[in-house]
Amino acid sequence: MSRNEEFLKKAAALLPKLHHMCISPLTPYRGRTLKAGESLCLDFGDHYVGTVTLKLSFTGSHPDAPAWLRFKFAERECELSENAAEYHGWISKGWIQQEEVHIDVLPAEISLPRRYAFRYLQIKVLDLSSKFDLTVESIEADTVTSADDGALASYACQDAELEQIYAVACRTLRECMQTVFEDGPKRDRRLWMGDLRLQALANYETYKNYDMVKACLYLLAGDTLPDGAVGACLFLEPRIEVDDTRMFDYSLLFVAALRDYVSVTHDGDTARELWPTAKRQIELAKAFFDGRGIVRDSDRLGWCFVDWNLRLNKQASAQGIYLYCVQAAIELAAALGIMRDAQELLAEYAEKKSAALSWLRDGRGLFVSGEERQLSWASQIWMVLGGVVEGQEAAKLLCAIEHEANAEKMVTPYMVHYYVDALISCGQREKALAVLRSYWGGMVKEGADTFWELWNPEDPGESPYGGTIVNSYCHAWSCAPAYFLQKYFGK
Amino acid sequence: MSRNEEFLKKAAALLPKLHHMCISPLTPYRGRTLKAGESLCLDFGDHYVGTVTLKLSFTGSHPDAPAWLRFKFAERECELSENAAEYHGWISKGWIQQEEVHIDVLPAEISLPRRYAFRYLQIKVLDLSSKFDLTVESIEADTVTSADDGALASYACQDAELEQIYAVACRTLRECMQTVFEDGPKRDRRLWMGDLRLQALANYETYKNYDMVKACLYLLAGDTLPDGAVGACLFLEPRIEVDDTRMFDYSLLFVAALRDYVSVTHDGDTARELWPTAKRQIELAKAFFDGRGIVRDSDRLGWCFVDWNLRLNKQASAQGIYLYCVQAAIELAAALGIMRDAQELLAEYAEKKSAALSWLRDGRGLFVSGEERQLSWASQIWMVLGGVVEGQEAAKLLCAIEHEANAEKMVTPYMVHYYVDALISCGQREKALAVLRSYWGGMVKEGADTFWELWNPEDPGESPYGGTIVNSYCHAWSCAPAYFLQKYFGK
Repeated sequence: MSRNEEFLKKAAALLPKLHHMCISPLTPYRGRTLKAGESLCLDFGDHYVGTVTLKLSFTGSHPDAPAWLRFKFAERECELSENAAEYHGWISKGWIQQEEVHIDVLPAEISLPRRYAFRYLQIKVLDLSSKFDLTVESIEADTVTSADDGALASYACQDAELEQIYAVACRTLRECMQTVFEDGPKRDRRLWMGDLRLQALANYETYKNYDMVKACLYLLAGDTLPDGAVGACLFLEPRIEVDDTRMFDYSLLFVAALRDYVSVTHDGDTARELWPTAKRQIELAKAFFDGRGIVRDSDRLGWCFVDWNLRLNKQASAQGIYLYCVQAAIELAAALGIMRDAQELLAEYAEKKSAALSWLRDGRGLFVSGEERQLSWASQIWMVLGGVVEGQEAAKLLCAIEHEANAEKMVTPYMVHYYVDALISCGQREKALAVLRSYWGGMVKEGADTFWELWNPEDPGESPYGGTIVNSYCHAWSCAPAYFLQKYFGK
Repeated sequence: MSRNEEFLKKAAALLPKLHHMCISPLTPYRGRTLKAGESLCLDFGDHYVGTVTLKLSFTGSHPDAPAWLRFKFAERECELSENAAEYHGWISKGWIQQEEVHIDVLPAEISLPRRYAFRYLQIKVLDLSSKFDLTVESIEADTVTSADDGALASYACQDAELEQIYAVACRTLRECMQTVFEDGPKRDRRLWMGDLRLQALANYETYKNYDMVKACLYLLAGDTLPDGAVGACLFLEPRIEVDDTRMFDYSLLFVAALRDYVSVTHDGDTARELWPTAKRQIELAKAFFDGRGIVRDSDRLGWCFVDWNLRLNKQASAQGIYLYCVQAAIELAAALGIMRDAQELLAEYAEKKSAALSWLRDGRGLFVSGEERQLSWASQIWMVLGGVVEGQEAAKLLCAIEHEANAEKMVTPYMVHYYVDALISCGQREKALAVLRSYWGGMVKEGADTFWELWNPEDPGESPYGGTIVNSYCHAWSCAPAYFLQKYFGK
């Protein structure tokens, strides 16, 4: 890996402090006694991230055997009825927020060993001697976030539904704002490049913690893959280390994220210092193109993320994302006054845009992807965002895909963010608002306190992981309404 | 409950310090990598009691999900293949020495949360991301005992089998010697009166920690049931507290244990101070007798322990135990020069012995118990120990019961201790030695490192708890050979 200790030092100095708040469950529990096999479900009233301490005691005879308890944390109540033993998906069961604890001596104060993301906590007595019952004397959560609640931009639009969607989106972002912008506080608890970009956009409109974005950009630029590619994500512990996962789109989105940051903050020093990293992402991406100027398709799982629709062919999306990020690079080069770079990038952009128009469109003007010329929403959206088609033509394209029943759909709020973005970019604001209402509003109607990593209204139980028990229900890439509502649909 | 703070203070001052020894497993493990579902079984080479700390690391990519591990401690290797989920017995699963642990950051040093009793440790990877394998860098156990290995009386009798039985018995006692004499370091980890008496006897012949016995006697006398009965057992944490379990025999055995202690140490002050407690046990037991002078039988489960044979009727045994303990009380009263008490106890003894002879014998001279006149080994043994029959007559009785196929047998080494004691009391030393060889030697042949709580050679899988997974395999009431071999079968 390629480390820039100066960048990492700069990042460390900018990382936020965590704000702590002590909370208790709303559910009454004092006086409840629990026998073997019984359980207690506690509702904390909202989504929180933190550690939990309990004071446990007993009624009856002096405990003559250890109490054996299971603690199950859930972001949504429905998770409590899911059985960890029945999950056989491909990501680790280690993510399931469940602990088994033995308590030798009662009364006891115990601190559960990890940080959890939760609204609900179920305490189940796996076994207990029949000589006593367990009682819960107190439960406290030490919750953490680096978001400053006092700094949150208010949003009042005389529309209760939109206000609620905004509130849930801000809650989502808040919960994911920890030492870095985490993708999700349940899972993966990490700084992912693609997620960061959307979080940063929402943050500019809400909590406005610019330094935190800057810190994250320096982290990602400070430990790259050996060839200088920005990794898909970064670990903070036990020391800062880039993941060895490389994704075509995530590396490129560093350029867009830097452009966003600079355009909001006008922080020229950062732009200048991180420009070589941004430029390097474009250079590296160039190697992916074939002689026609089209991104080479790949069989490698996850070579380019785009969305969690596992059937999606990524080629056309990748082409659009590349163009989108080259545009961002041009903006950056121009802002920095590096005109030779800007010129070169303009030529590159024109060439790859032309190739897309030549090779990735079918007879009806829809973009297709891969050898099997797959139709998908993602391909159209990224072509619009990449500027391959614009204005009325773009609007027509986004309308046309709606009528293609066989087109591969989107399953993540992450991809739907870019759909809304594409709609706005071609003047379809009403349609964009309708999507915010139906998609994010749909989650609110399902009881979301925070927005979910995945939401396919046509298949609410969908999970790309082989089981919903490892799904994250507070996922920052889903906080789009905080950005769009505040920026485009204010009073 | 009835507390005597002076007694408890005296006990606290006498309780032993724990000796710590750091050990590592004998099994090589460095360099082994573990994937999801794989496990590692470690052998520490002997039975130990203590806490365990591990250094864990990984090979492969940076861990991108928490490692989820299960640690299973076992006193015998066969426990490792038992499934906790299949145990549905009546004592708490909380005793099963098994932990589930999540590890968010690797490398990590983790200390498992409890004190364990073990020779074997199985580490199973419940799940792991496929991007890395787990490695175990080091495993250390901080083992504890209050036994002073340097003080252990050696035993050399030119008989390898007996020497081995002696060594296993001493190991058993050593492992149960913690802050108090525990019944078993896996389960129940408590000071039980009946167990203490046998441990104390073995201790006088081996580690000779007289103060520890004295401390335990003061503890039991220092917190009694409200009427002054010595409880069946005592808890140390969170504060000293007598259990509310009352057992006819265990309360009475306080008298025998005090007599033993005084006769070994000639500690007249303790005898004098604890005499009222001893005397009170006899007084309370008197209330259990009917007009004929026979202990009233009871349906209350556990009213009198005697043995873990669940079919055993306890009436005749209780009568024998009472007489045995009245004899001990007479000895104490005489030693203290309290002649009025001694006289009264002698009269009481004669009356209850005579009642036993009148009402509890069948036509063939065998003792019977309960309304159904049940024949059992326990009844004969306790009548012999209670002095109801003596010498040749007692020897004949113990021989006769061997030929009664329907007589209820013994299943605990605790009861077999009293059998050996009874044999010796009527001059059957060779027979006693044969029992030591066959019964305790039988466990050694089965691979025992320490002697087991339960051992029925005819049914090795027997458990009074509804499953062997909660059986204790290092149980102090099983250390009889340490006492008998050293006292009666030395060089």
